[in-house]
Amino acid sequence: MQVLFDQLREDGRDDPGVSRDPYGEGEQRAHATVAAAGAAMALEIGRDNAANLYLTCPGRDRKSPRLVIGSHLDSVPHGGNFDGAAGVLAGLAAVAALRTLGVSPACDIDIMGIRAEESVWFQVSYIGSRGSLGTLPEGALDVRRVDTGRTLAEHIAACGGNPSALLARRRHFDPATVRAYLELHIEQAPSLVEAGRSVGICTGIPGNIRFPYAWIEGSNDHVGLPKRFRRDAAVAGAEFAMALDALWNEHEARGIPMACTFGRFHTDAAQHGMTIVPGRFDFSLDVRAYDPTVLADLESRITAIVAGIEQRRGVRFHLGTKAAAAVGPADPGIKAGLERAAHTQDIATLEIGSPASHDGAAFAAAGVPIGMIFVRNENGSHNPNEKMTIEDFLDGTIVMTQWLIDAIV
Amino acid sequence: MQVLFDQLREDGRDDPGVSRDPYGEGEQRAHATVAAAGAAMALEIGRDNAANLYLTCPGRDRKSPRLVIGSHLDSVPHGGNFDGAAGVLAGLAAVAALRTLGVSPACDIDIMGIRAEESVWFQVSYIGSRGSLGTLPEGALDVRRVDTGRTLAEHIAACGGNPSALLARRRHFDPATVRAYLELHIEQAPSLVEAGRSVGICTGIPGNIRFPYAWIEGSNDHVGLPKRFRRDAAVAGAEFAMALDALWNEHEARGIPMACTFGRFHTDAAQHGMTIVPGRFDFSLDVRAYDPTVLADLESRITAIVAGIEQRRGVRFHLGTKAAAAVGPADPGIKAGLERAAHTQDIATLEIGSPASHDGAAFAAAGVPIGMIFVRNENGSHNPNEKMTIEDFLDGTIVMTQWLIDAIV
Repeated sequence: MQVLFDQLREDGRDDPGVSRDPYGEGEQRAHATVAAAGAAMALEIGRDNAANLYLTCPGRDRKSPRLVIGSHLDSVPHGGNFDGAAGVLAGLAAVAALRTLGVSPACDIDIMGIRAEESVWFQVSYIGSRGSLGTLPEGALDVRRVDTGRTLAEHIAACGGNPSALLARRRHFDPATVRAYLELHIEQAPSLVEAGRSVGICTGIPGNIRFPYAWIEGSNDHVGLPKRFRRDAAVAGAEFAMALDALWNEHEARGIPMACTFGRFHTDAAQHGMTIVPGRFDFSLDVRAYDPTVLADLESRITAIVAGIEQRRGVRFHLGTKAAAAVGPADPGIKAGLERAAHTQDIATLEIGSPASHDGAAFAAAGVPIGMIFVRNENGSHNPNEKMTIEDFLDGTIVMTQWLIDAIV
Repeated sequence: MQVLFDQLREDGRDDPGVSRDPYGEGEQRAHATVAAAGAAMALEIGRDNAANLYLTCPGRDRKSPRLVIGSHLDSVPHGGNFDGAAGVLAGLAAVAALRTLGVSPACDIDIMGIRAEESVWFQVSYIGSRGSLGTLPEGALDVRRVDTGRTLAEHIAACGGNPSALLARRRHFDPATVRAYLELHIEQAPSLVEAGRSVGICTGIPGNIRFPYAWIEGSNDHVGLPKRFRRDAAVAGAEFAMALDALWNEHEARGIPMACTFGRFHTDAAQHGMTIVPGRFDFSLDVRAYDPTVLADLESRITAIVAGIEQRRGVRFHLGTKAAAAVGPADPGIKAGLERAAHTQDIATLEIGSPASHDGAAFAAAGVPIGMIFVRNENGSHNPNEKMTIEDFLDGTIVMTQWLIDAIV
């Protein structure tokens, strides 16, 4: 596996870090490397309309609902070597282990190299996985990659996919024929590092509420304006951020996981200046949680906070378009099975919510039971410093293999 | 006066509003118009090394310390017609009134059309007034106007001034030869509107502490990162703003006037995005008050607030260069005299601190006793909607004229 990781790093090298641009050269090279590894293991090699890669280990009953072990082979620009790729290589390692043990699976196992998971390139999430399920959102094929300016349809066609079939929502998987989707991924927050465990078992993929283009309307005024006359949009933004920060603290205290992030949080560069009370303040807001009722409650709390600030500060919030993604809970049976498998193998695990979004959410939304294994990683993901040891990776694959043995052998 | 105001508006027209760019075409036209009005009144016309304009009404004793009635003739871009210009025209109106009354002043009265007061253009305050007093700060002549890119020295030379003389700190005024500096200005906060009075008598010009280029260093991280791992620079900025907001509330409750403004308050446009915890947050801070001990106390409170946030949020504040301007208190004798003059004329006044900075602060810093008269104005200043009625303006000039009669006739 180390050799394969090294090969992938060379394939994607773009100092600092690696760039495996989706439906582009970087991702293509990774697909070629992984396909070659599958061929060397005599796995069946397939591709779908979205140009996802399948390395299939045939089961005893080929008609029985199949198991998909997947992750993505693209990366963010100048990202690390493990985000995504580790999950595909884990599938190869697990199947190799089954063979070494001389056991054959009851059903087919698809090791799936998923396309274009990182939304930074096309600003669309879960392209490959939703392509395989026929659930790509309306208009996605017309979106242009931010760097090349070419459409997703053009990129897919250039990599041997069939955008027309995707447009017609022709799917590779009927969800009823998939018994489970399993993904191993490096952790993206150092929770396992903190806990001193190599493996985490995922409770779910968070849902979110997003306001990508919100802004506050106040009044541009002279720096000397007394407080009672001000309609300061920036201080209103600060109060809003602190109110959500307090809300988050309150949830932490009650043990309810959530996160909120003001990724963009700014006065208007065209107007702001040291001696002007800001009349406009822009922000993006991402609120995430693992429980739909928590998300709904957060949204109504936000509405109340906004109303209070508007009233106190004489400003007006324009939250703009709201985007939302459903919570993707891990299947309780798979989660329990993964915990049992780890226990069998004497690997101590930590139960954690995925901080980030993953292709599993697309499978969960289609009704497929999902499970996720996290592997300890020291420096976060989406950067060249991702640090997963091969020992920890192997702990993750051992848990996966044991689960396969328990579940489908 | 209405005709002269209209002419100035035409001179500076730059829809919306007027732009009288300092040491540029807009200000030049205003100087020409005001000089012509002075010539029509047979006043002596003079200019100094900073190209300030003087329209002098000779006094009975020309050697006696003189009185300066001044304000600036530049404006912010797309500003209003009255900020600055009203004070110069008030001087003309007051001298005209003295003549109509047939009284001659004991000393010379200089009506001073001051250059370049609006710091938005050169990011330097009080250029004309400090030029006349030989107190321009080190390096000011090398500063470039933000729009033209040319230095202040070049701009001054192009308008007939003498930058070399300014560099050598040659002054137009020996402060000992100036008995008082008087300025009429439209109010910049609607305090008079609120109080229903046409005229305000100024208690002082605030001093300030400024951090024009401060920033907070945190860590750019994935949107899903749990709270305990975050070093969110934007939320740290929000906490800082709210702490200063609370400090301001506390001062208001104790009846101590101050103001604080985050004019620029923003995440980094080159890096920010909806799914990134901000690792950098920039801001400017202007803190102002009328009492040097209040300012000093605010500064030490800010230091403590910064330390607390750094500790709680794992971020680091870089406050950068600090700029400071001394408090410019109104001379108590002049203030009392203006109040008596208003009382004589049966004009109800309001005692108010100047919310903004004014050239008077430069005179006060040089040891000249100063006084200021504010005139009601509905829509703030620095915008095209400044709304001073000619009746209110005349109330202000009546107070000024009565004070001249009381003080120097």
